[in-house]
Amino acid sequence: MRPSKRAFDALRPVTLERGVSRHAEGSCLVKFGDTHVLCLASIEERVPPFLKNTGKGWVTAEYGMLPRATGERMRREAASGKQSGRTLEIQRLIGRSLRAVVDLGALGERQITVDCDVIQADGGTRTASITGGFVALHDCLAWMEARGMVSREKVIRDHVAAVSCGIYKGEPVLDLDYLEDSAAETDANFVLTGAGGIVEIQGTAEGAPFSEAEFSALMGLAKSGIADLVARQKAAIAGAAA
Amino acid sequence: MRPSKRAFDALRPVTLERGVSRHAEGSCLVKFGDTHVLCLASIEERVPPFLKNTGKGWVTAEYGMLPRATGERMRREAASGKQSGRTLEIQRLIGRSLRAVVDLGALGERQITVDCDVIQADGGTRTASITGGFVALHDCLAWMEARGMVSREKVIRDHVAAVSCGIYKGEPVLDLDYLEDSAAETDANFVLTGAGGIVEIQGTAEGAPFSEAEFSALMGLAKSGIADLVARQKAAIAGAAA
Amino acid sequence: MRPSKRAFDALRPVTLERGVSRHAEGSCLVKFGDTHVLCLASIEERVPPFLKNTGKGWVTAEYGMLPRATGERMRREAASGKQSGRTLEIQRLIGRSLRAVVDLGALGERQITVDCDVIQADGGTRTASITGGFVALHDCLAWMEARGMVSREKVIRDHVAAVSCGIYKGEPVLDLDYLEDSAAETDANFVLTGAGGIVEIQGTAEGAPFSEAEFSALMGLAKSGIADLVARQKAAIAGAAA
Amino acid sequence: MRPSKRAFDALRPVTLERGVSRHAEGSCLVKFGDTHVLCLASIEERVPPFLKNTGKGWVTAEYGMLPRATGERMRREAASGKQSGRTLEIQRLIGRSLRAVVDLGALGERQITVDCDVIQADGGTRTASITGGFVALHDCLAWMEARGMVSREKVIRDHVAAVSCGIYKGEPVLDLDYLEDSAAETDANFVLTGAGGIVEIQGTAEGAPFSEAEFSALMGLAKSGIADLVARQKAAIAGAAA
Amino acid sequence: MRPSKRAFDALRPVTLERGVSRHAEGSCLVKFGDTHVLCLASIEERVPPFLKNTGKGWVTAEYGMLPRATGERMRREAASGKQSGRTLEIQRLIGRSLRAVVDLGALGERQITVDCDVIQADGGTRTASITGGFVALHDCLAWMEARGMVSREKVIRDHVAAVSCGIYKGEPVLDLDYLEDSAAETDANFVLTGAGGIVEIQGTAEGAPFSEAEFSALMGLAKSGIADLVARQKAAIAGAAA
Amino acid sequence: MRPSKRAFDALRPVTLERGVSRHAEGSCLVKFGDTHVLCLASIEERVPPFLKNTGKGWVTAEYGMLPRATGERMRREAASGKQSGRTLEIQRLIGRSLRAVVDLGALGERQITVDCDVIQADGGTRTASITGGFVALHDCLAWMEARGMVSREKVIRDHVAAVSCGIYKGEPVLDLDYLEDSAAETDANFVLTGAGGIVEIQGTAEGAPFSEAEFSALMGLAKSGIADLVARQKAAIAGAAA
Repeated sequence: MRPSKRAFDALRPVTLERGVSRHAEGSCLVKFGDTHVLCLASIEERVPPFLKNTGKGWVTAEYGMLPRATGERMRREAASGKQSGRTLEIQRLIGRSLRAVVDLGALGERQITVDCDVIQADGGTRTASITGGFVALHDCLAWMEARGMVSREKVIRDHVAAVSCGIYKGEPVLDLDYLEDSAAETDANFVLTGAGGIVEIQGTAEGAPFSEAEFSALMGLAKSGIADLVARQKAAIAGAAA
Repeated sequence: MRPSKRAFDALRPVTLERGVSRHAEGSCLVKFGDTHVLCLASIEERVPPFLKNTGKGWVTAEYGMLPRATGERMRREAASGKQSGRTLEIQRLIGRSLRAVVDLGALGERQITVDCDVIQADGGTRTASITGGFVALHDCLAWMEARGMVSREKVIRDHVAAVSCGIYKGEPVLDLDYLEDSAAETDANFVLTGAGGIVEIQGTAEGAPFSEAEFSALMGLAKSGIADLVARQKAAIAGAAA
Repeated sequence: MRPSKRAFDALRPVTLERGVSRHAEGSCLVKFGDTHVLCLASIEERVPPFLKNTGKGWVTAEYGMLPRATGERMRREAASGKQSGRTLEIQRLIGRSLRAVVDLGALGERQITVDCDVIQADGGTRTASITGGFVALHDCLAWMEARGMVSREKVIRDHVAAVSCGIYKGEPVLDLDYLEDSAAETDANFVLTGAGGIVEIQGTAEGAPFSEAEFSALMGLAKSGIADLVARQKAAIAGAAA
Repeated sequence: MRPSKRAFDALRPVTLERGVSRHAEGSCLVKFGDTHVLCLASIEERVPPFLKNTGKGWVTAEYGMLPRATGERMRREAASGKQSGRTLEIQRLIGRSLRAVVDLGALGERQITVDCDVIQADGGTRTASITGGFVALHDCLAWMEARGMVSREKVIRDHVAAVSCGIYKGEPVLDLDYLEDSAAETDANFVLTGAGGIVEIQGTAEGAPFSEAEFSALMGLAKSGIADLVARQKAAIAGAAA
Repeated sequence: MRPSKRAFDALRPVTLERGVSRHAEGSCLVKFGDTHVLCLASIEERVPPFLKNTGKGWVTAEYGMLPRATGERMRREAASGKQSGRTLEIQRLIGRSLRAVVDLGALGERQITVDCDVIQADGGTRTASITGGFVALHDCLAWMEARGMVSREKVIRDHVAAVSCGIYKGEPVLDLDYLEDSAAETDANFVLTGAGGIVEIQGTAEGAPFSEAEFSALMGLAKSGIADLVARQKAAIAGAAA
Repeated sequence: MRPSKRAFDALRPVTLERGVSRHAEGSCLVKFGDTHVLCLASIEERVPPFLKNTGKGWVTAEYGMLPRATGERMRREAASGKQSGRTLEIQRLIGRSLRAVVDLGALGERQITVDCDVIQADGGTRTASITGGFVALHDCLAWMEARGMVSREKVIRDHVAAVSCGIYKGEPVLDLDYLEDSAAETDANFVLTGAGGIVEIQGTAEGAPFSEAEFSALMGLAKSGIADLVARQKAAIAGAAA
C-alpha cells in the first residue's frame, strides 16, 4: 500500500497551467501532486561563445528551490554562494532533455533559458520540471512564431516528458512522492519522447543492487506514465493560446 | 494621469492569501497588483551566536527574485555566486521592520526566518514583502501558540506594513508600480506600525532634490495607505485559521 | 547630557584636509571628531557598459574600513571574500548622494570613483564619507578643469553633505558618535544639498517606533548641521589649490 | 570499424597497479587504454555531521582532472574557484557506487575518501575511477584490517566496477574511447557488482532518442565487460600485498 | 644618479609615528619617503586551532593596500572577492618576520594580529610594513605588560627591520622607490634582527641573472640600512609612551 | 647523520622522464627521491591582455598538489574554492624562474603554460617543479620548432634549475627531504642558470636567525647541486626526442 493510497501504476494528479507569468515569453506552473514547479522560458538574442556565428541556437535550463519548498528549510543557494552538485546535475539534465527534441538550427542564433523554480517539493521535482518545462518552451516558440521569428513545428520535433519510478516495499511503483522516495530501494528517472524514444535513463540502487528484471518493470511503468503525461501536455497546449 | 489610471492616493488591488505552503509554519502570498511575493516563515530551534544563552530569540528575513520575475531575465544570484547589494539591503530592511514589532524575549531562544521570494515583479517588492511577511510571521506564531511554545500576543506587539510613495510627473502618488517607479523624481519607502508609529523611512531623490513639503505630502499618503494595508492584514488574519 | 558633553545641536570638531594623496586626482581626509575617513577620487577613461556611447559619464563610490578602525578588530573583507551587506549599502548611498549634484552629461564619457576608506571609526562614517567625498570629487574636477577636460562648474551643480541625527535618552541630538549611536532609540541619516534640497533620508527606529514630530525635530537639526558642513566645505575649497 | 580497431565487445587494455603511493592507505593507478586515473584512499577518524554518534562510517570520493589531461588544456578548477557541474556529478557517482558494496556500520565511525585524479584522459574517466577506486578502497581496508581496526570482509560485501557503452556508427560498442565518445549517438554508463547486480545506470541520447532494444544491447555488453573488469580486480588483489 | 638624488647607500626619510590609533593596542604610522603604511596591532584572547591547549600564542599579519594607494587605481580586493597572490605572499612574509623575534611561549595562549595597510605606495611597502609593524607589536606588548599580562622583554627577543636593495642602472642601491623598483635589474628584500642575524632573504633577477658578488654588495647595503632602521625604532620607542 | 643517510652535499636520486603525456606539447615527470612532479607544457595562441599587440609572448606556470600527495590528506583546493597563499607563491616563483631564461620576443605572441602537479610529496616540490618544468618547456619549444613556429635556441637562452638547502642539526645540507625540511633551522631555495647566474634566492630562518657565513655555505652547496641538476637536464634532453 502506497502512503498516498495510489495504485502502483498511478500518477499523482497532474496539472499544467499555462500563461502564469506576465513577463516570460512562455510559462507553465506544473503540479505533480504537492510538487509545484514554476517553469518560465525566456528568449535572448545571444548564444554561448561556442555557437557564435554557427547559425545555431541553444536551449538551456536553470533549476532552483525556494529555501522552504521542503519540509525542513534549506540554506538559500544565493546566500551560500554556490549551487549544489544536486542543483547543477538537475539543471544539466533538464537542458539535455529539452534539447533532445529541439532542432537548434531551426531555432536560429538565439538562446532560450527555461527557469524551473520549485515552489513546493514533494518528490519528483526534476521530472515535473522537464514535463512543465516542455510546455513553457513550446509557448515561448509559439510567441516567437507569432512574431515571425521561427516556425514552431520546425524547431520542436516531438514532445518530451519525464517521470520517476522506484521499488518501494519490494514493488515497482510509478511517480514517487517524497515519502516513497525516501524509503525506496531503487529510484530511476526516465525521460522519453512523445514517440516513445528514450532520451535519458538514470537508475540508482539506494540499498541493495537491483536486477535487470526489476529495471524492466520500472521502464514499463515509465512508458505508460509518460504516455499519459504527453497526453496532458497535448491537452494543455490545445487549450486557448496562453 | 497614472499609467494604471489609479487615483493619486489609491493602492493597487492588494490580496493576502494565507496557508499557501504545505511545509512552512506560516505562509502568505501577497499581491500588490502584479507584484507577487511568496512569504514563508520557518521556525528553527537555534539562534545566531550573539544571542546564545541570552534567552532571546531572533527574527530575520531573506529576499530573492526568480530570474524572470522581471521584464528582462536577470542572472540567477545562486549562479553568479553572490547576492547583490540591492538584495542584501532589502532583506536587512525586511528583517529590521519585522523585529520592530516583536518582543524577542517573549519569543524565546529560537529563530524565525521569513523568506520573501518575488514570483513576479511590478514595483514595490520590498513593501509587499514586509506587508505579507508580517502575516506569515503572525501565522508562524499562531502555529507555535497552538503547540504551547509561545504566547502570540506577547511576541507580536503591533502590526507592521509598508508602502512606497513618490513624486511622479510632479505629483505625489501612493504605491508606485514599475512604470511609475522608473520615471519618479523622488521615491520613498515607509514602514509604519498599526498604531501609526514610524519604523523606517527611506527617501531618495532620483533626479532633483526634493523639499520638506514634498516629503510631508509623501508621508501623508503613506500613513493613509498603510492604515489601509493594516486593515487588510487584520481582515486576512480574522479569516479561518490558515 | 551627551557623553561628549556637546550641546544637543553641536557637531563634533570637523576638519576637511585636502591634497592628502600623492596619486589621486582629488583627495580629502575628513574628520568628524574621532571618525577619520580618507576620500580619494580617481578618474578613469571608461564608463560602465550601460553608459557606453551615450556621451554620459558616471560617478561611483566604494567604501571600506580598516579591520581595526573599530574598538574590536573586525575580519578583513578581502580575506572573508566578500563585502558585507552594510558595506554595499553604504557605498551605494555615497554614490547616489554624489551623483545627485553632478551633471553626468557635462562630465563626459568617463568615470570618477571616490574611495572612502575609514581609517578610524567613532560613528557617522557614512555621513563623513559623503561630506569629505564631495571635496575629493570637487578637487578631481578641478584637476580635470586645469587640463581642459571639463568645466567644473557645469559638472557640479551644488554642494552635498550629510549628517546623522538621533534620539538619545529621549532627546533629539545632532551628529551621533559611537556611544550615542549604540544607545540611540532612533537613528536617521540626512543628505542635503547646499541649497537645502533633500537628497536622501534614512530613518530607523532602533527600539520603539518614532513619531512624525520626532522625525521633524531630527530634520531640523540636520538642516542646521548640514548648513554648517557646507560652509566648511566652501571654506576648505576656498583655500589654496590642493 | 572502431578507430582503435577493437572488436565491438572488447575492452581497452586494462591495468590495475596497486601500491603506487607512499602515503595513502590504499592506492591504485588504473589504466583503461590511454585513460589513466590515480585512485588514492585516505582514512580519517571523523565522519560527516549527519553520522556523528551513529556508529556508522562513510565512504566518499573526490574527482579531478589535471588541466592538461585532455587534448586541449582546460582551466584549473582550483584557479577558477569552483568545481564544475560535471566534476560534482562524477564524484557523487563514484561515491554512491563504492558505498553500494560497503557496510557502513561494519566500517565504524570513520571516513574513507577515495581521490580519483585523472592524469591522462581518453574517455571513460568515471568508469575507470570506479573500477580503480574499488581497488584502492579494498587496500585501505586491508591496511585497516592489518591494524585490527576492521574486518575487511564484513565491510566490503562485493566487488563493484563500471564501464561505458554506446552506439557508435549505429553499432553498440563496449568501453568508448574519446573519439568514439565524441561521435556516439547514445552513451551509457553502467555500474555493476561482482554478483551482477545493478548499482547505477545512466543512459543519454546524444542525438536521436534510442530504443529499449538498443538499451538492452548496451546492457548486455556492459554485463560482459564488467565481469571481465571484476576478474581483473580479483587478480590484482590476489597479487602480493600492496 | 638616482631619480631621488639620494646617495646609493641612503635611505629615504624614515619616520615612525606611534600611538596613531584610538582603538588598537599598538600602532605605528611608518613612512619610508612617500610610502606610508599604517600598522595596527590587535590582541585577541584566542589562538589558531593548531595551538589550542599548547600554552603558546601566535603573531600574524595581514596586509592590504587602499585602491588608490598607487599611481593607477587598482581593484579593491574586497570587491574582487579574493586577496591576490602578491598580498598573500607579503602578509606571510610580515608574519614570519615578526615571529622570528617573538617567544610564542612567553606570549601565552593569545594572538596578536598586525594589520599593515598601505595608505600611499612608492615602493618598499613590505619592508616598511615589517619595520613599522615591529613598533606596533612592541607597543601592543607594552600595553599588555602595563596590565600584567606578559613581560614584554621575555616576549620580544630582539628588534627586526627590513629594507629592499637592488641593482639600478648597474649600481647597487639601498631602499628602492617605485621608479627605481620598476627599472631595477635585480631586486632583493632583506629582513634582519637588531643583532644582525638574517631572518629572511629574497632576491630576484628581474632581467639578467645576477652574480654572487652582486648579491654580496646588496647584502652589505642592507646590513647598514637595517642597522639605521633599528636605531630609529629604538629612538621611537624611547620616546614618551604611546 | 641525515635521515636518508645521504652525505651532506648529496642530492636525492633524480630522474627526468620525458614524453610522459599523450596530449601535452612538452612533458616531464621529475623525481627528486620520493617527490614526484608531473610537468606538462601547453601552448596556446593567445597572450595576457598586457601583451596584446606587442609581438611578445608569455611563459607562466601553475602548481597544484593532489590531496593525498602528502602524509596527511589535505583539502582539495578546487573544493575549498581557492588556491592557498603557498600555492600562489610557488607558482609565481616557477613562472618567474622559467621566464628568466626565455626570450619572450623570440617566442612570439603566444603563451606557454607549464602545469606542475605534485603526484607525491617528500619536500622540495617547488625546486623539482622548476627543474622538471624546464625540460617540459624545452620539449614544448622543440615541438614548436619542428613545426616551424620558433627557433628553440633563440627562445631558450640557458638552462635553469633549482634546489633547496638548509641547516639541519647545525650542518648545511643539500636537497632537503620532508623530514629534514620539518626540522631545519634554516631553509633556502636557490634558482640558478646553467651558466651559474642567480635567478632567485629565498632564505628563511625557521628558528634562530642565521649568519652570512651560514648563508654562504648554503649557496656553495646550491651551486654544486644545481650544476649537477643541469647536467642531468642536458643528458635527458640529449636522449631520443620525446
